[in-house]
Amino acid sequence: MSKPVIAIDMGGTMIKIGIVKEDIILSSTAIIADSGNGLRQRLPHIEQAVKDLLAQQGFSCKDIAGLGIASPGIIDSTRKKILSIDKKFGDAPDIDLEEWCRQTFDLSFCIENDARAALLGEWKYGRAKDLDNVVLMSLGTGVGSAAIVEGQLLRGKHFTAGILGGHFVINYKGEVCNCGNKGCVETEASTWKVSSMPNNIHHEQPFSDYKTVFRLAEEGDSNALAIRDQSLDVWAACAINLIHAYDPEILILTGGIMASGSYIIPHIKNQTDKHAWTPWGKVSIEAAAFPSSSALYGMNYLVNSQNK
Amino acid sequence: MSKPVIAIDMGGTMIKIGIVKEDIILSSTAIIADSGNGLRQRLPHIEQAVKDLLAQQGFSCKDIAGLGIASPGIIDSTRKKILSIDKKFGDAPDIDLEEWCRQTFDLSFCIENDARAALLGEWKYGRAKDLDNVVLMSLGTGVGSAAIVEGQLLRGKHFTAGILGGHFVINYKGEVCNCGNKGCVETEASTWKVSSMPNNIHHEQPFSDYKTVFRLAEEGDSNALAIRDQSLDVWAACAINLIHAYDPEILILTGGIMASGSYIIPHIKNQTDKHAWTPWGKVSIEAAAFPSSSALYGMNYLVNSQNK
Repeated sequence: MSKPVIAIDMGGTMIKIGIVKEDIILSSTAIIADSGNGLRQRLPHIEQAVKDLLAQQGFSCKDIAGLGIASPGIIDSTRKKILSIDKKFGDAPDIDLEEWCRQTFDLSFCIENDARAALLGEWKYGRAKDLDNVVLMSLGTGVGSAAIVEGQLLRGKHFTAGILGGHFVINYKGEVCNCGNKGCVETEASTWKVSSMPNNIHHEQPFSDYKTVFRLAEEGDSNALAIRDQSLDVWAACAINLIHAYDPEILILTGGIMASGSYIIPHIKNQTDKHAWTPWGKVSIEAAAFPSSSALYGMNYLVNSQNK
Repeated sequence: MSKPVIAIDMGGTMIKIGIVKEDIILSSTAIIADSGNGLRQRLPHIEQAVKDLLAQQGFSCKDIAGLGIASPGIIDSTRKKILSIDKKFGDAPDIDLEEWCRQTFDLSFCIENDARAALLGEWKYGRAKDLDNVVLMSLGTGVGSAAIVEGQLLRGKHFTAGILGGHFVINYKGEVCNCGNKGCVETEASTWKVSSMPNNIHHEQPFSDYKTVFRLAEEGDSNALAIRDQSLDVWAACAINLIHAYDPEILILTGGIMASGSYIIPHIKNQTDKHAWTPWGKVSIEAAAFPSSSALYGMNYLVNSQNK
C-alpha cells in the first residue's frame, strides 16, 4: 500500500493543501493565496498548514510518500521548476521549491501544471477512468487545458504541449492578450477579462465575475446576456479546437466558472456536436468528478509514480 | 539493406507515383487525379503507371518491400481504410485498397494521411532530422498539418490528432466551413476558398489561385493585396495555434502555395516570433526540404517500419 501524499494546489485566490491517499482526502485546508505579493512570503504559511494537517492525522513526515505542488503556468516537471507564470506568484521561478521541500520536510518533491494535475486526477480516479484519450478544459480566472493522447500525458519539448488551450487564437483580428498573442480564448472571455468586455465597460456597474453575469443574464439584463452568450461561444470554439488538436473521446470541464453556469455544458455539447469534425461519433462533454480536488488527486498519483 | 517501396501520393489534381529507396526516388511519374470522378476509376491507371515504373527499373514485385499510399482525409492506418475524405475521391472509403494491392501486386500495403506522410519524410530524411518535436503545416487546396510530440507521431483515438490544423477555429464569428465547423483556417484562407473571399467576389475577374493573387499583389492590385495580407494573417494564426497545441522546436511549411509566396515564411516567422507564447525561445519556421516528395519518402519509411 502506498503512503499518503501532501498535495498542494496553488490557486490565484486560495492555496489548497491536503493529505491525500489515492482519491481520498484524509484532511485538508486552504490558505489565502495573496498571490500578488509573491510565493516566497507564503512558504512559512504553507509549512505551518502542512504541519497542522500532519498533527491532526497523528502523522510525521516519515508516514508520507512525498509532496507535490500543482501550479499555474509553465512547469518543468523534470527539473522541478516553475518556468513562466502570470503576474500572480511572480517570484516563483526564482524559488528552489525542491530544496525548500527537502529542508522543511525532508520529503521527495514533484511539481506539475495545475490543469495537467487535474486531468491526471480525473484520469486515474474520476470521470476519465480507463479512457486513453482525454482533454480537460478549465474555466476560471484564465482558461486552462491539458491532454492525454493514446495514454500519454502531453508535455512537449518545452512543457507547453496541451496546456495552452486558453491561448489558442479564436479571433485572429482580436485584441492583444496578456500573453502577447492576439485574439486568444482568454482575452475574448475569462474572469480576468470580464470587467473590460465590450458589453460591460459601458455598463454603470461593470460585472467583475461570471457569477454575477450568469445571475443577471437569468434576470434578463441585456448586457449580461450579451456577455454570457459571447463567452459561451468563445469557450465552445476553444472546446472545438481542443477536440481538433487532440482527438479525445471525452472533454472534461472544470474550474470556478462551472459552479455558476448550468448553461455551460449543454451549450458546449450542442456546439461541439454540431461543429466539431468527428466523423466517428460525438465527443462526451462532462463535468469533472472532483471539481475542487482533482489536482490534489493528480499530484498524489505523480508523487507515487515518481517514487516507484 | 531494405528493398525499394512503391509510394503513391494522392493529390487532388495529380497522383504522384514513385519507386523510392530511403530518400532517393529511383523513378517516378504523375497521372491526372480526375478526383471528381472518384478513386475506383483511377486504379487501373495507377496499376499501369506502377507496372511501367517497375519495368523501367527492371524490377518485379519481388524486388519491392511494399506499397504505401499517402491520402488526404482521415485515415485509419491500423485497419488501412480511408475513413473520411472531402468531395474529392468520394468513393474511396468504400474501396478495399489493401485487397486491391494484394490482388494486383501481391505486396504488403500501408496507408496514411498525406500531411503525416510528408512530416515523416521530413523527420526521417529532411528538415527535421534528429528532432523529436516537429509540426508540419501544408498550404495547398486546403490547409493540412501533422505533429510529432516527444518523438511520437500523433494519431489519436480516431486518427484525427495533429491533422486538423486547417480546421482550427481562428474566427469564431466566421462563416461555416465545408467541414461543418465555423471560422476554420481553411474557410478564411485557402485555395478552395480564394475565389469567394470578400475582396475577390466584387472583382470583375476573381482570382482563382494564390499564384495570381501573389503576382497581382506584387503589381499593386489592391484586391490582391488585401487577399494576400488577410491570408498571411490567417496562416500565421494557424501556425501559432499549432505551436501552442504541440510545443514544437520547428514548424515546417510545405504545399503548393509555398511555390509562389516568398512572403509566406518571413511573415509567419515574424508573427510567431512576436505572438507565440514560447518563453524558452523561438520556434524555427522553415520550408520543407522536399516540397514535392516528402510524402513519398514518408510512405517508404512507413512500409519499411511495418515490415520489420
